[in-house]
Amino acid sequence: MIRGNFRKNFSLLCVISMVLLVPGWLVGENSPGDSTPGDSTADTLHGLLKNQQDAWNQGEIVRFMEAYWKDPMLTFSSGGKTTRGWQATLDRYRAKYPDAKAMGKLTFDALETTRLDSDSALTLGNWKLEKENPAQGNFTLVWQRIQGHWKIVHDHSSLLPESN
Amino acid sequence: MIRGNFRKNFSLLCVISMVLLVPGWLVGENSPGDSTPGDSTADTLHGLLKNQQDAWNQGEIVRFMEAYWKDPMLTFSSGGKTTRGWQATLDRYRAKYPDAKAMGKLTFDALETTRLDSDSALTLGNWKLEKENPAQGNFTLVWQRIQGHWKIVHDHSSLLPESN
Repeated sequence: MIRGNFRKNFSLLCVISMVLLVPGWLVGENSPGDSTPGDSTADTLHGLLKNQQDAWNQGEIVRFMEAYWKDPMLTFSSGGKTTRGWQATLDRYRAKYPDAKAMGKLTFDALETTRLDSDSALTLGNWKLEKENPAQGNFTLVWQRIQGHWKIVHDHSSLLPESN
Repeated sequence: MIRGNFRKNFSLLCVISMVLLVPGWLVGENSPGDSTPGDSTADTLHGLLKNQQDAWNQGEIVRFMEAYWKDPMLTFSSGGKTTRGWQATLDRYRAKYPDAKAMGKLTFDALETTRLDSDSALTLGNWKLEKENPAQGNFTLVWQRIQGHWKIVHDHSSLLPESN
């Protein structure tokens, strides 16, 4: 009888243990501990920035904006001011760079990406605009993986004063 | 014999299942899902910034620097340039603000903190220096909780051009 109860209780504990394990298997692939190596995230993000640079150099500002979080909560800081929202950020670019001559040729370099956790990352880099009135500086990008897609949720860009 | 094997295999599976559950229980408390609410993190970080502002206004730059990650990997971007490392960042402050007159009175305001995950956060805000040659602008701070302490791992500060 005691052994019978032991077997019954042991079996019950087993079933509970196995059931409790299932959620772990199911979420395993999305858990921070199971994240891809930082360098592969860097490759992904630097690839998105290469596409962004190419879009700019083809005069396609809307395609350039694809790397940014299309949300009113996107923030873009520059020269002591913060622009709020994807649309306002696009409008700012369009007003500041109305044509191909004003846009010039954009180059990003010295990109450094640090993974903050499985779904957020920080990228530092330099930007350069070759045009009649050239300019260069650096930027800070905060990325979040939203619904499986890496998006810039915050950008802080600075101008090197002596560069224009 | 078949039932005997079944019992033996079932028992083995049970023991494996229970052993596999233990690490989950052990790490549970440190998992991002178990993080404190974002607003309490904002209160903590804004409190650290209040201490930093007070330290500056008492002329104590080393105490002001306590909010920053004391590591060669700390990055501080401003005016298109990036300073690397805690010591270099302290040296930059000391060179730029050699005395109380140059330091002026610092005020931080419009602080907004977004939790990126349980151990990283983003703070945007404005800074103002009241002095003979006043200046103001905004900043982006990336925080990480390192060994239980929230530290600024990256700062990107901008100057409002017309402010000085």
